Parts: sequence; C-alpha cells; structure tokens
Amino acid sequence: MATQAERPSNYYDIVIVGAGPVGLMLSTCLARWGYKIKHIDNRAEPTPTGRADGIQPRSLDLLRNMGLKSAIMAHKPARVYEVAFWDPPTSGKGIVRTGTWASCPSFIDARYPFTTLLHQGLIERVFIDDLQKNNVQIQRPWTIKGFTSDEKANPEYPVEVQLEHVDGTGSETVRAKYLFGGEGARSFIRDQLKIGITHKDPIAYVWGVMDGVVKTDFPDIKMKCTIHSEHGSIMVIPRENNMVRLYIQIASSTDPDFNPRKTATVEEVQASAKRILQPYSVEWERVEWYSVYPIGQGIADKYTLDHRVFLGGDACHTHSPKAGQGMNTAFLDAQNLAWKIHAVESGFAARSLLHTYEPERKEVAENLLAFDNKYAKLFSQRPPAANEVAAASKSTGPEENEFIKTFKESCAFTSGYGVFYKANALNWSASHPVQSHVILDPATAGTKLQPGRLYINADVTRVTDANVVHLEQEVPLNGSFRIFVFAGKPSVTAQALKDLAANMARKNSFYTAYARPDADTVSHHEKHNPHSMFYTVCTIFAEKRSAIEISRDAPALLGRYQDHIYADDRWDRHVPDATASAHAKMGLDQERGGVVVVRPDGYVGIVVKLEEGSATVDALNAYFGSFCTKKLGDTLAQL
Amino acid sequence: MATQAERPSNYYDIVIVGAGPVGLMLSTCLARWGYKIKHIDNRAEPTPTGRADGIQPRSLDLLRNMGLKSAIMAHKPARVYEVAFWDPPTSGKGIVRTGTWASCPSFIDARYPFTTLLHQGLIERVFIDDLQKNNVQIQRPWTIKGFTSDEKANPEYPVEVQLEHVDGTGSETVRAKYLFGGEGARSFIRDQLKIGITHKDPIAYVWGVMDGVVKTDFPDIKMKCTIHSEHGSIMVIPRENNMVRLYIQIASSTDPDFNPRKTATVEEVQASAKRILQPYSVEWERVEWYSVYPIGQGIADKYTLDHRVFLGGDACHTHSPKAGQGMNTAFLDAQNLAWKIHAVESGFAARSLLHTYEPERKEVAENLLAFDNKYAKLFSQRPPAANEVAAASKSTGPEENEFIKTFKESCAFTSGYGVFYKANALNWSASHPVQSHVILDPATAGTKLQPGRLYINADVTRVTDANVVHLEQEVPLNGSFRIFVFAGKPSVTAQALKDLAANMARKNSFYTAYARPDADTVSHHEKHNPHSMFYTVCTIFAEKRSAIEISRDAPALLGRYQDHIYADDRWDRHVPDATASAHAKMGLDQERGGVVVVRPDGYVGIVVKLEEGSATVDALNAYFGSFCTKKLGDTLAQL
Repeated sequence: MATQAERPSNYYDIVIVGAGPVGLMLSTCLARWGYKIKHIDNRAEPTPTGRADGIQPRSLDLLRNMGLKSAIMAHKPARVYEVAFWDPPTSGKGIVRTGTWASCPSFIDARYPFTTLLHQGLIERVFIDDLQKNNVQIQRPWTIKGFTSDEKANPEYPVEVQLEHVDGTGSETVRAKYLFGGEGARSFIRDQLKIGITHKDPIAYVWGVMDGVVKTDFPDIKMKCTIHSEHGSIMVIPRENNMVRLYIQIASSTDPDFNPRKTATVEEVQASAKRILQPYSVEWERVEWYSVYPIGQGIADKYTLDHRVFLGGDACHTHSPKAGQGMNTAFLDAQNLAWKIHAVESGFAARSLLHTYEPERKEVAENLLAFDNKYAKLFSQRPPAANEVAAASKSTGPEENEFIKTFKESCAFTSGYGVFYKANALNWSASHPVQSHVILDPATAGTKLQPGRLYINADVTRVTDANVVHLEQEVPLNGSFRIFVFAGKPSVTAQALKDLAANMARKNSFYTAYARPDADTVSHHEKHNPHSMFYTVCTIFAEKRSAIEISRDAPALLGRYQDHIYADDRWDRHVPDATASAHAKMGLDQERGGVVVVRPDGYVGIVVKLEEGSATVDALNAYFGSFCTKKLGDTLAQL
Repeated sequence: MATQAERPSNYYDIVIVGAGPVGLMLSTCLARWGYKIKHIDNRAEPTPTGRADGIQPRSLDLLRNMGLKSAIMAHKPARVYEVAFWDPPTSGKGIVRTGTWASCPSFIDARYPFTTLLHQGLIERVFIDDLQKNNVQIQRPWTIKGFTSDEKANPEYPVEVQLEHVDGTGSETVRAKYLFGGEGARSFIRDQLKIGITHKDPIAYVWGVMDGVVKTDFPDIKMKCTIHSEHGSIMVIPRENNMVRLYIQIASSTDPDFNPRKTATVEEVQASAKRILQPYSVEWERVEWYSVYPIGQGIADKYTLDHRVFLGGDACHTHSPKAGQGMNTAFLDAQNLAWKIHAVESGFAARSLLHTYEPERKEVAENLLAFDNKYAKLFSQRPPAANEVAAASKSTGPEENEFIKTFKESCAFTSGYGVFYKANALNWSASHPVQSHVILDPATAGTKLQPGRLYINADVTRVTDANVVHLEQEVPLNGSFRIFVFAGKPSVTAQALKDLAANMARKNSFYTAYARPDADTVSHHEKHNPHSMFYTVCTIFAEKRSAIEISRDAPALLGRYQDHIYADDRWDRHVPDATASAHAKMGLDQERGGVVVVRPDGYVGIVVKLEEGSATVDALNAYFGSFCTKKLGDTLAQL
C-alpha cells in the first residue's frame, strides 16, 4: 500500500462522490486494500425503497469473490430463473403465455444461473457494513461544490475538492490523488467537466415503476414477465418479501403527443395494470414505492478528465430499466477502476494503466446499449414463436434465425458472462507488442480462454484438504494477478515446472521484481500472498488428488501456496469425456497444461505454454513488462 | 399452540437444564412453535473453547431446514471430505499414508458430503441468537436442586422444579409440563431418577485432546487422519482459523497398569505427538484448549421417567470421541422429542406418541456404540490395504470383505443418513395395525422410501418461479407432517388427484379434522400452513415445468399450496435414465406417482398409492388415526 502515514489530515487517496452501487463498490475495494477514502453522499440515508434491484449471474460471482454474497442472500432475494412472454391470443381477448425461457440458459456456464432481485437499499447496506469494518464511513448528507485537478502544480495530490453539508451548515476542502463521480445520471462532476452525453437511440421514454404486494391469480407473478396486450405493455419482476415490481411504459418520444414530463398517478398505473392483465385479477395490498421518470439511452463522451478525475455508473451510461443492467454495469465500472488505481498507487503498474479504464468500460456500455436496442426492436416487431423459444434454450441448433441469435447474444450479455474487453497491453492479442512461440493465441491454438474475456469456471479438488472447490473463486478479490499453472500430468511436466519455478525465482523476473519487502517474516498461514502482494499462484495437476504429493510434485515456489494446489479430477457436464475437465474446459492440453494469467478482476490476460526452458517465464516477463513499472527479465541484463 | 395466556408467571411448558447442543436444539424448536420455556445452564457463558466440534452431513441438512446453516457456515468451518490413514511402513521407521477415503462417499446421496468442524461455542451462539429472536434467554449460571413429577396431583403441570443460582444467591421453584435434562454425562436429573448406565464395551479410556495452531510439514494436517506409529496413536482433526485438534489415547483399561485418573501435561502430549508424527516436524504456535478425560461407552437404561421428565444427549449416551457423533446424536435426540411434545401439546397426537421417544433414540445410540466398537476393533487389527480403500469408496463391488462392509455401514451411520427408526405407529410396517392394498411396502412394492428412514433427497423445479430447489428442504422444520403428492403424469392421474383432494376435504378426514380455526382469514401469502398447522402438502408432477398449469392440473386444495407445486424435470446422476428423477429415486411409478407422508423430523412415515376412489385417503386416515387424538374418516360414521 502506498499511503503515507504523515500526510495532512485533509489529504486523501480518493474522494468518492455518491454512495450508490458504483461508489460503494469502489470504496469497498479500495478500503480493503488500505486506502484513505473520503466518501460522501447527498442523501441522509441509504436508498430507503425502490431503485435498482437486479444482480446478474456474473455480478453474484463477483460479490462472492468479495465475500459479500452470503450477506446478500441472507435477505432471501427473489431468484429469476425464467422469463415468460405474454401476448394477445390469436383470437379473442386477454393475454396468453406465448413462451418462457431461461434467463441464463445452460449454454452459459454460470455458477448461479439466475437473476437475484433485492431492494437496492439492502444491497447498499451490505457494502456499508463491510466499509465499516475498514473504518470508512459515508459522510451524509454532504455534496460536492467544486473541484480542480492540476497534476503539474501538485503531482502527488493533484485534486482539490470543495465539499459542503447539503444545508450549508458545514464545508471543507480536501486534497486527493483521485476524485470519483458516482453520482448517478445527474452528475455534477460530469457537468463541471463539460462532458457531453451521446444518445445512441434518439427515442426517449417515460416509465412508471411500482413496487408493492399484490393478490392475483396471474400464474407468473413470481417470474419475470414481458406482457403485451391491447391495453398496453407491462413488465413484471418478482422481489423479496412477496413483493413485485411493475414497469409500465407511460410515454415514448415516438408518440404523436409525446411529453417527457407526462406522468401518471398510482391509481392510473394500477388501473392500467388491471386492464393489461385481464382476464387475470390483481389487487394491491400495499404499494411500497412508486416513481415516474423519463429516461433515454445515453453514454458520456468521456469517463475521465485527466486520469485523476473519473466517472462511473449511471453518470456514464443511462438506459431503459428493461435490461436490468444498471447496477451490474456500475459494479464492474468500479471494480475495473479499483484494481487499476491500486496497481498504480502501490507501485506495480505504470500510470498509463489508468488509460485503459475508459476504453474498456465505455465499450461495454456501448455494446450494452446496442444490444438493448436490437433486442427491443426485435420484440416490438412480433412475439417469439414456440419453436424459437425452444431453440433459443439449446446451445446449438440448425434453426438459428436472427431472433434466436440475438436472444443468445443478449443472454450472454445480460448475464454478464458475455462482457469482454478489447485488446490492449493487459489483454494479449496477435497485435500485442509481446510475441513469442509459447503464447497461446485462441484463434490458432484452440484454447477456450480468450484474453479480455472472463476466466472459465471449473471444479477442482484442493489437495491439502480434499475440498471440492470452484477454481475461479479460489483467489479472493485481493488486487493480485492470478497465475494459474495448469500442470498437466506430473510425469510429463516435471522439468517444465522446475524450469518455471526457477525462472520465476530469478532476479528481475516479473515475480521477484515485485517481491514483498517483508517476505522473510510472512506467516506460514498466509495463503494468497506469501512472496508478493501482486501475484497469487495456483497449480492444477491433471491427476487424482490422492496421487499428488505436493512436496514431490510441486517445486517449492509453487508448493509454498499449499492451499492453492489442486487436482483436476472432477467430472464436468460441459466436457463429459475429459479426463482432466478443468484443463479441457480451458482448451489446454490435458498432459502438458499451460499457464494462464488472470487479471485481478477475473478477466484473462494471457495464456502461455508450459514449456521446458525459460521461454514461458520470458513471455510472462515481457507481458507484465508491457505495463509494469520495472524492466523485467533479461532485458535488464542487456541494458 | 396450546399455551395458556393466564397461567401463573412461574408456570412453564418446559424446563430445560443445560444449554449444550441437545438443550439448545430442543429449546430452539419449541421456542419457534410458541412454547414458554425456562432454560438454565450452570456455566456463566457459552462454551468458551474446546468440546464438540463435528457436524455430520445429515445434521447440516437439519440445520439448513431450520435456517441456521448459513450462520454456521459464516464462521468458515473446516470441511472434512476425506479421511487419511497413516501407519508404520513395512520396513524402516516413521509413518506412511496407507490410504485415504471419502468421509461421506458418493454412494451416500448427501447434499453436503463432508463433516463440518467448528468450535462448539460458535455453534451454541447460533442457537442462542435464534432463541433471542423468540424472547428466550438462557438463565446463567443456574442449576437444578430438585424436582418432582406427579401427573395425578397436577395433570396439566405435573413437574415441580427447584432452581438455584450456582453461588446460592437466588432460588426459585417453577411448575412445568415437562422437564428435560440435557446436562451432559454427569446428569443430576439422571442420578435423581436413579437411571443406570449400561456399558456396551467394558473398556474405558483416558483421552487427551488439544486444540491449537501448529507449524508442520505433515501433508495431511488439513484432513482428518488416524495415525498409528510405533510411538502410539493420534487422531488429527482440522478446525476453523488454521486450528487443528489432536486426540491422543493416554490410557486404556486394557493397559496392565491402567489408572482412569492417569493424566498428561500439554508438554507431554506435544512431545508424544512429535514422536508419532516423525519424520514430519510439528511445532505449536498456540494452544487454545487442552483437556484430559476418562470416557467409557455407556447408554442410560431409560431416557424418561414418566414421559414428563426426559433425558437426551450425553446424559443418555457416552462414547469415544473418534466417531464424532456426540453433538449430532444430541441434535437428533432433541429434534425427535421436540416435535412429539409439540404434536401432543397442540392437541394433534395422543399422549402415547411420547412413548416413541425412548425406543427410537435409544436404539440409535445402541447402534452407534455397536458400530463404534466393531469399527474400532477392525482398525486395531490391521490397517486397510490400498485395494480395500479403493473398493470401499465405490457403491458396489465384488470384493466386499468384512472390512469394507463395516466401513460402508459406518459411513452411512456416521454421516447420519443411515440412522433409522424401527416400526411403530409412526413408521408403517407389515405389522402395523393399519393395512390396505394401497399401502406401498418397500419389501414388495420396490419403493426406495422406507418408513422409519430419511426421506430421499431430490432436485425439482418449483412451478411458480422456475427455481430449482431441493425438494426435501422445501418444508421448513415447522412441526407439520409433510405430505408429498407425487402426481405422476397429469394425463394419467387427473381423476386420482381429484379424488385425493375431494377425500382430503371431506369432514373428519385426517386433513380437515385438524383444520386451522382461522383458516378463513389466513393470508394468501401463507405458504406452508394455509389450511392446517399440522400438514404441509407438496405436489410433484412428472412433467416439464412449462407444461404445468397449476389452475388446470392441480385440484384447488393442492393448488392452494402454490409455492409447493413442482416439476420433476431435473436430471439426477443417481438415476441417469429416468424421465422423472425424483419419482424414480423414491421408487415410485413415474406415471402413476404415489403419496408419501414424511414426519415433521424428515423420516418417512408411510407411502401409499395415488389411486382413484377413496382408498388412498382412507389409508391415510387410518394411518394418522393410529396416533392422533381424533377418530378419522368413515370410522366415525360407523360409530
């Protein structure tokens, strides 16, 4: 950690404005890694009712990786496994179910193939509780009044921020290394920076949203439903505590008399819902929250001013609530930025690493909006036929028309598993400055792992205690790069493993160049970072657990991670015939293995062969050297 | 609930003495069901360190059914998946691993195939927190000074109990319907009742047990290990927070110079462990707890005086710690008694139901001790050979010698899945007074469900929200009998289902005879007990979820349990070729189904055919009539 003990009390590593999902995720990550944070929010309390509520499968993986999932699940959220479509019947009145399908179909290899629905305030409190463990309190109700950023005048703390109590009873000026705007769609920081919003789709909508408890004989009230009727359209989303959320589109800029200020009362929306749901009845026992808001699709032109002042979440991208992506995209914006700030401030990565935040996350928002549009259009054209519904749920099929193709892409995207980052220094590609014969290019080498995409889920058996574990969850969100050494058959790779360890242990390797200064006094119980705070190394043998002896099969450097040695001996339905399922799922040779570098946020960085000699580590040195602060490997010797 | 509002303040439903696992489980169940409880313990605080720590797979199911599992797991307990055996090598010195095997092998269909290891105090606190939600506080440090029980003098509150603060500063006399002694091996209540202890095995032992944190190169320190060496024997059990528990046998009554008061210091045990573990090294960083205690196998001759004063847990059975069964047997003693007290006191079951507590639970303790003995003897004879280890892990095999057979029985028993209750009024058998052609006798009908054994685990899809759920967990521990209507194919069973519902709805059926008095005003959100507090009904169709319409396929009585309608459409590795896996696992016809009655504690009561006409409900009326308070079914009309 790079904080200084002796800085003035009004100096912070970061000022975070807004304690919604994006601000809280950023704050939580950085607080865990020891940063000094000033976090303000202009609301007196966390979200009391309403707002976002959908956690997608990939986001649940992330929350689990942070140890926050069980606190979320303790609130008994609703779980949406399927989406139902209701439309007018071909003859007669009312509505009929025209199909249902999985919200995260089995062709997506998700640990949690459902959307988790829970009130945003409860989700916020899970983060706030975690922050308190690290002595970070949200300062409420405070707001930002102004800021400047000047790296030349103050290279270390370039940002000055004026903060004020919302009723003007207090104010303070603080200095920080970074300022983050997670203030939502109406961002003061974005406005100050004069960053414009580009609207992908010129159409704007007015939505009504109502949370409440109903009594109904509508059979799919506990499923996510898209209902079209002659009386209008509605979306049903189940919630915790027998609640249900209804979204009704109140106006569209395509209406002849469109008025973005059009509104509707609770009673009007309820009456409308009753008409739409006919012949089913619906009565409200309680309305917890009701809101009408205009919304258009838009993306901020920039996510940062100068790589010191950043934006994320709704401040950067707004879209219709239908996709259920707001909170999830916010989480991933924050996580992406968090580890990069950490990598730079802790002296590991060059400052230019921060330049990857905007392109990586902006591209995701753009893809999201494009999908949202495409998908919505397809739906507005016609309801899906039964055979399309069936076909869309399978992993492959001959009858892939445009609708099914779009649906599948959409599932991958909305589940979070389809998000990917384009090639850059972190995400190796054929155009990366580093090239070597040991680098496995998925385009030619047959690896399933693709740089810029999520690491693939796999079950393995931990050797020390025979626990069956989820390999992708074994390294917590600790800010470290995850080095997965797929060691293949010990009899085949013994020399390659020795060479790997020996070259990692060499002076100026990517590994030793960032060794812990306190490595000699680290407790033998330290599981994840015994040698370096920047790497956690896992070794996976293609062997039965009982046949593995760590002291014999793993070189000492790898064996030191005694709780990260695994047996690839579990059956997997995705590769039923594999002898080493995890190797097979990654597309790695089941005898010879390979080395996978996964970024701290779970995305693949590079995949290399596990080869005898120094080429494997040479390639890793070159890869890390392309964004690290130090010259790595033999390049130094040549200087 | 049968408590009275106007009883004197010192009148209780039950006095529970001892707040270890057995007392806390009993108290927690009864508190949830609304009973007024006086619960005392002579310790000032919950268990601070040491004592029991092993939760077996079946116990974890039970804790989940009570909603307590996640609180246990939040403490990150160790999970033992495998047991390793270490013995002297055939030549040379030291120890070698002679085999490892699963502690809960895959032939046991367990949801959680591991033993959960956690400090008893943390487990106690999970119960204590739950009790507090129901306004029950443990009164500490208080002890019992005397009691009388006289049903003739006071039929409603026959028990009088004198309680006293351990330092004599306070005392009180209370009256109760029941008194429960969960005081551990040295039970005052048992002594007062002059109940003897029968020793199955006359051999007594002195054990040393030490919890601590070690630094070692012994590779299996995170597994459960049984280690024999020329320097003695030791058992290793991993714990939470990098701790490990070591059990060392210090003396045996078979020693020539046996002294049951023999002891050993911490240093002596550590020195002994070092010798045994050679050639591996072991150093202690910290010792958290150390104890030496003599223990013999014993079972109390009686578990009750008069079905008003009961004993459970260690007060009834003591055995070596090796089996790891103390706390688990205690939990199940308490749960068995809890629901029976509730059934009687709420007016559902005849008082004679309580007479089943002792025979059911005493038999389990006797079986446990017999297994423990048999297993220990087999081990003392010789270490298992490698092929035996391999064979024992498979579900079937030709090479089943005595060792493997005993091991398998032992696994089933120690996991908790092998526990069974003999035939009685609750557990139907060919000798049960109720006989009918619709009753499915596992001996002849091919059903896998056996009265007196645990209900079988199965995955199904809930119809209302498409959630994939564990069917056996769908009804919480609410004191209700669980009626699982396996409805087969709707096209085949439509009339049988109608007849079932119609006959259940008839006056004086087992179902309507115990209707809720407030049934008309029950909320439509009530999931488990809309009609009766004594039954929860689940309906499982052998059909794809999307093909099921509850309003069309389920008669209204069954359909009212809208959250308990399921599709049997999940694949199961145990019946890979079945079209309806849950039906197949139960051994029920996949088209015609069947009706399964499961006791409130999860054990099967009776299984009947789902037949058109009244025979199905007639048989259920007769079955429940054999232990209920009312005459059920047509028997009343004939009077």
